[in-house]
Amino acid sequence: MQAYASMTKEQLQEEEAKLRRIYKEYQDKGLKLDMSRGKPSAEQLDLTMDLLNAVDKETVMSAENGLDVRNYGGLDGIPEAKRLLAGMMDAKPEQVIVCGNSSLNIMYDTVARGMIFGYLGETPWCKLDKVKFLCPVPGYDRHFAVTEHFGIEMINVPMSEDGPDMDMVEDLVSEDDAIKGIWCVPKYSNPQGVVYSDETVRRMANLKPAAKDFRIFWDNAYAVHHLYGAENGQILNILEECEKAGNPDMVFEFASTSKVSFAGGGIAGFAASPANLADAKKSMTIQTIGYDKVNQLRHAKYFKDFDGIMKHMEKHAALLRPRFELVLNTLEKELSGLDAGTWISPKGGYFITFEAVEGCATRIVELAKQAGVVLTPAGAPYPYGKDPKDSIIRIAPSYPTLEDLGLAAEVFTVCVKLATVEKYLEK
Amino acid sequence: MQAYASMTKEQLQEEEAKLRRIYKEYQDKGLKLDMSRGKPSAEQLDLTMDLLNAVDKETVMSAENGLDVRNYGGLDGIPEAKRLLAGMMDAKPEQVIVCGNSSLNIMYDTVARGMIFGYLGETPWCKLDKVKFLCPVPGYDRHFAVTEHFGIEMINVPMSEDGPDMDMVEDLVSEDDAIKGIWCVPKYSNPQGVVYSDETVRRMANLKPAAKDFRIFWDNAYAVHHLYGAENGQILNILEECEKAGNPDMVFEFASTSKVSFAGGGIAGFAASPANLADAKKSMTIQTIGYDKVNQLRHAKYFKDFDGIMKHMEKHAALLRPRFELVLNTLEKELSGLDAGTWISPKGGYFITFEAVEGCATRIVELAKQAGVVLTPAGAPYPYGKDPKDSIIRIAPSYPTLEDLGLAAEVFTVCVKLATVEKYLEK
Repeated sequence: MQAYASMTKEQLQEEEAKLRRIYKEYQDKGLKLDMSRGKPSAEQLDLTMDLLNAVDKETVMSAENGLDVRNYGGLDGIPEAKRLLAGMMDAKPEQVIVCGNSSLNIMYDTVARGMIFGYLGETPWCKLDKVKFLCPVPGYDRHFAVTEHFGIEMINVPMSEDGPDMDMVEDLVSEDDAIKGIWCVPKYSNPQGVVYSDETVRRMANLKPAAKDFRIFWDNAYAVHHLYGAENGQILNILEECEKAGNPDMVFEFASTSKVSFAGGGIAGFAASPANLADAKKSMTIQTIGYDKVNQLRHAKYFKDFDGIMKHMEKHAALLRPRFELVLNTLEKELSGLDAGTWISPKGGYFITFEAVEGCATRIVELAKQAGVVLTPAGAPYPYGKDPKDSIIRIAPSYPTLEDLGLAAEVFTVCVKLATVEKYLEK
Repeated sequence: MQAYASMTKEQLQEEEAKLRRIYKEYQDKGLKLDMSRGKPSAEQLDLTMDLLNAVDKETVMSAENGLDVRNYGGLDGIPEAKRLLAGMMDAKPEQVIVCGNSSLNIMYDTVARGMIFGYLGETPWCKLDKVKFLCPVPGYDRHFAVTEHFGIEMINVPMSEDGPDMDMVEDLVSEDDAIKGIWCVPKYSNPQGVVYSDETVRRMANLKPAAKDFRIFWDNAYAVHHLYGAENGQILNILEECEKAGNPDMVFEFASTSKVSFAGGGIAGFAASPANLADAKKSMTIQTIGYDKVNQLRHAKYFKDFDGIMKHMEKHAALLRPRFELVLNTLEKELSGLDAGTWISPKGGYFITFEAVEGCATRIVELAKQAGVVLTPAGAPYPYGKDPKDSIIRIAPSYPTLEDLGLAAEVFTVCVKLATVEKYLEK
């Protein structure tokens, strides 16, 4: 195929006319397809149905420490659930607190504690004139929604294939004590699938922030969500690296089983230093008498240990790989050599990132919508929904059936081509 | 028995010597008994074991609205769970949001929203110099812990057998716009078991607070926790009464199945006006992608409807009644006519309130502790842990076995007598 950049105006016009015909044909089909949602498919959820029988009326309802999981108590989680999440987070069980089903809720609560009470005796952020967070971009829209909700100013930090731009991160946090945090998805980042390099993790752990209460929000959301084996997703242990660097209190790590067991009924937790755990528990003991320990026991009995989780995740990968490959192959087949954008082939996680020609993302999403294919809104992976180049589109291949996904990917490529040709014709 | 008040000093000294001998005998037994915890017994938890089989690997995992409960979505709860909690709260299903397992956590989050974001566009409380809550006393220590944690000043309001002193409540809230809330347990109040009279509920709903963002925190914790039938625990519908009074947004009602199904694995929710629900959801949609809907479905399938809950609660009552009666009979037998304190026979809830002679509560709890019987700390049912008369002791009869409870109650009465005689001898 000839690259659009090398076409004459006439060739581009001819191409546009052809693309409009094809686009119209898709529009006439009245499609209703969705590649917007990073959620597991029904087939994936079916993988974990036996979890529901892991605890039943015959089960002895005591945790390893003798606690009756049906009753009050056990604020920080039962030991076997701590061990399970510790395995996922590469943490020690004693570094872990197990909460309810949503790691996002734990992150929200952790930011809220910074706002209202302050960490480890520091001034609550709500008493300060200005609070800022660093936001590696593109990133996870719900992280940015939390910081925006609390009125925290967000600063974009570009991502490379090794993680956030650490030169920029180092400069900013050492200079500005209003910067209180950074959002990180260190493994198979949302949306690019970037795995932070060892150097990135080490530099992160060795930050010298101006603010004593600066925290790394290490959202290990895809800790075990490999598509092609765990060897592609090795990251250094941030808790250990922070300790080594003399910054033991600088990180909160989060994880959940939302995409391991059930998105609507998993368990979630966080890991941190002894001082941070004690500080968090001061609020948690006021906030609740304890989280759902029956579900913690259910997960511990079903998965047994970290190996059990890893074996289970291979089944998820077997369902996800064909979906990712179908989209990637369609992009390759339809867009290769056209100068109409680039994309990343991730080794894990839940997304494919498409980088359109600058200024085309919003138009592509709009065209797709008009043809019955819902995509994540352009701009969503950026703070305030503003992609400065209007080029990043997050594709979520997990939820549709293979048939729907194939069709949606075809429609997507037509929209990409059409928007790109329109753009070249403008110039 | 002769009342202590009418004894001569010599008689009192003789009584004291006798009581010290009895007390010493109990001490020598090396008892380890506990009447401090308002939590269900293992027998009660056993009542609900079939809940664990209500959802299993054969279950169709769709809610009534078609939502796959295993997946993300459904922020405000599945319809059948809303209906279940609506029944408990005497609310309409559309007035209800179902959350995780802990109603305390919902109350905490609700106060936190007032602090950080403000209700319905009002100034966030953290921006104000002073925020106050009214606290009917004696009351629930964990309510007071929440408000204390947020730095909210607490004002004691005396309880009568009809509920809080409404003259005082009306005067205070109409005069002082720093008063932003009142904690209420309207049915079988913690600890006294008071059921708010119709007049109290109506006056509450008709308050004319100086603060637009004043809210009644209506913790209907014992909504269905009758000991002698539902007819003893009828209260007016606060949501309806607030609507009638032109104050639809003035109340948040809370409830959970913690003492219906499992304290460590139930479901909880809240009910409020459309405006309050929409306002709460603005934060909730940032805070979480959704609560555990698998457990919501499990509860809905097991209990089916409000009648199912009411029938189940009769089984709880059958286990709890003998415990309450054992303690009450022991108090009657040992303390009647002694002028050593009074007590309330509740018709529901989880506690018996003992009102000692002024200045004796701390001493009684201390004596009991030294004899191996743990009681809720004196002062706990008051803000800041300070009982101005040092007279209220909360007895929790639910958790111990009947045998242990009988012994603990005997020890308790000896401690009451001894502390009272000591007190009379001081005078």
